[in-house]
Amino acid sequence: MSTDENGMARDHAPDDVRLARAYLLRVAEPPAPALAAFVGAHGPVEAAALVRRGQAPDSVLQETSARRELGLAERDLDEAERHGARLVVPEDAEWPAWPLLALDIATGRGVDGVAAPIALWVRGGARLDEAATEAIAVVGARAATPYGEHTAAELAYALAGGELAVFSGAAYGIDGAAHRGVLAAGGVTAAVLGCGLDAGYPAGHVGLLNRIAEHGLVVSEYPPGTPPARHRFLVRNRLIAGLTAGTVVVEAGARSGARNTAATAGTLGKVVMAVPGPVGSAQSVGCHQLIRDAAATLVASADDVLDTVGRLSAARAAPPPARRRTDGLGPQALRVHEALEGRGGRSPEEVATESGVPLARVRALLPALELDGFAERCETGWRRARS
Amino acid sequence: MSTDENGMARDHAPDDVRLARAYLLRVAEPPAPALAAFVGAHGPVEAAALVRRGQAPDSVLQETSARRELGLAERDLDEAERHGARLVVPEDAEWPAWPLLALDIATGRGVDGVAAPIALWVRGGARLDEAATEAIAVVGARAATPYGEHTAAELAYALAGGELAVFSGAAYGIDGAAHRGVLAAGGVTAAVLGCGLDAGYPAGHVGLLNRIAEHGLVVSEYPPGTPPARHRFLVRNRLIAGLTAGTVVVEAGARSGARNTAATAGTLGKVVMAVPGPVGSAQSVGCHQLIRDAAATLVASADDVLDTVGRLSAARAAPPPARRRTDGLGPQALRVHEALEGRGGRSPEEVATESGVPLARVRALLPALELDGFAERCETGWRRARS
Repeated sequence: MSTDENGMARDHAPDDVRLARAYLLRVAEPPAPALAAFVGAHGPVEAAALVRRGQAPDSVLQETSARRELGLAERDLDEAERHGARLVVPEDAEWPAWPLLALDIATGRGVDGVAAPIALWVRGGARLDEAATEAIAVVGARAATPYGEHTAAELAYALAGGELAVFSGAAYGIDGAAHRGVLAAGGVTAAVLGCGLDAGYPAGHVGLLNRIAEHGLVVSEYPPGTPPARHRFLVRNRLIAGLTAGTVVVEAGARSGARNTAATAGTLGKVVMAVPGPVGSAQSVGCHQLIRDAAATLVASADDVLDTVGRLSAARAAPPPARRRTDGLGPQALRVHEALEGRGGRSPEEVATESGVPLARVRALLPALELDGFAERCETGWRRARS
Repeated sequence: MSTDENGMARDHAPDDVRLARAYLLRVAEPPAPALAAFVGAHGPVEAAALVRRGQAPDSVLQETSARRELGLAERDLDEAERHGARLVVPEDAEWPAWPLLALDIATGRGVDGVAAPIALWVRGGARLDEAATEAIAVVGARAATPYGEHTAAELAYALAGGELAVFSGAAYGIDGAAHRGVLAAGGVTAAVLGCGLDAGYPAGHVGLLNRIAEHGLVVSEYPPGTPPARHRFLVRNRLIAGLTAGTVVVEAGARSGARNTAATAGTLGKVVMAVPGPVGSAQSVGCHQLIRDAAATLVASADDVLDTVGRLSAARAAPPPARRRTDGLGPQALRVHEALEGRGGRSPEEVATESGVPLARVRALLPALELDGFAERCETGWRRARS
């Protein structure tokens, strides 16, 4: 949040800041670590002016030279507004500074390819900072199985019921099922795209994206008009991982973009989780490998997810399993109980022989078992009590 | 292996040793840690004589007082022979001393309930020491699902194909499926029982046990005539865990005896593994909990099992997944490649703008991509090469 000339906090960044960041998003293909650092050092307005004039270190010019002549910031902001979208900048109260801090920390540690975004194009009725406060990423294969889509939808539904926002990538398969599960629960879901918000991609999910935007969010760092590309999905994955507390991979083949998101989440120090499946399913191979390599924690339910990210759920899905009545018995009492028969009675001597428990102990244990309702006397000796 | 009066090694223990151990197996209900230590200190013949006369420490008398009058050793050995069984004692070459050492070590560390057996009743054509040299336990729920039984059978089949012996408990469900999988592969399987070898239990598996005995082994520490009992299955589980290098739980409910075997295997320092399944299946809950709690390593195949127990399999089940052709490209080359179109050509300037890669780099990368077969020149500029 910035302050105005009187030092009062305000919710929105001034227009020149927004224009400068819109320009910077346009001239550099993310992630642009040198540019991000340059903006951090000079502020967005001065940084933009310097880049435009070519007065920046070589590393910054490398990232920006191809497009720095482009003066499309105003057009991009107008275009976005026409699509019902806005540019959220770090100077806004809506900026998700806390979850994205992980990107700066990892970049500072020397991790490549995870520089923080310069700003984010956002469309939808939710506030990005609020959605990202308690958020889980649910991602997975496009070529998902019915099991995977069902599991993703159920998991997302339950997470939304637990007041968590669910982030995903709007792809076919697991991503779409996760978004739909949240919508069914009336919760908040966010789709983070690897293309401009107006790209209409994937084509079959345009309606879904519109529904997501009603109560949730559609997010991208790519300016209007940017087409989807494979490298952009990989770059986008750092935002899905960065904006959430943890990432759940629901289904993933041996090679899968979802595993890339999981690896990025791990690099960022976020929690990585994976859902198991039938061992014969090729779409669970990636999840099983993540779990086997201890790169992900197995989760089988929303409660598992909440436990793993460290928040206790208010209401457990299932009560603990019932104890068998004899669970409280010691080993010798258990053996004596086992040595009794349901119908015919046995003498303490017979019980001692059958159970291997010394006769004196048997004589002491039988009345104790009777008191606890496990044994009863009959004409021919002792027998097991009917339950 | 013992030595005869000339100091020559011999394969079989003398008759008095076998008689003494048969007597000791009859008088104490396993596990009998005090008796095991007493036998270790005095040797089986003297220990048996002292126990019979009541001249033993209280701890030993506690374990043996109920039955020490029983002089059934000769009858038990005759009875066993009539059923085609034998008593294997630690003085025999066939004794699986090395794997069972884990029981002594754990008992020495103060772990309760895992004392080594005094001897083992064995029926079948295989040698117990050889079977236990490279052995895996495959266990699981009696109330197994078709998925679980199928997975257990396939896993056991593949392990048997890798020359490993598969141990299990002959129960309905997973145990039976594991034994049958090995029999289908013509391998060696061993059933370890919680009752006498002649108990005919479980009734529906008498035929299966006969087939197991043909080329494999049926094993028990309980004398002929001992009926099955719940506590005996728990006690038996330490032998399944102890005789193998690792235990695989294929299916287990939230409460399951298979989890007891897994816990015992962990206590003994053996490898514990679990097979995942669909998250909606109640019979996979126990496996998922074991994996989630890091009490077991996830295994999805026989190769996973072999990797986990530390032996590399000679032949991998599946070749590594194929690499995509563009995997070898650097990030800038990948972005340039993505910026090309399949049909119409693009100028280097257009490619630079679209990819965000500096024009000078684009001019250098395009010919390099051409050399590697990723790009080609056409009348209108550069386009993606057809693969």
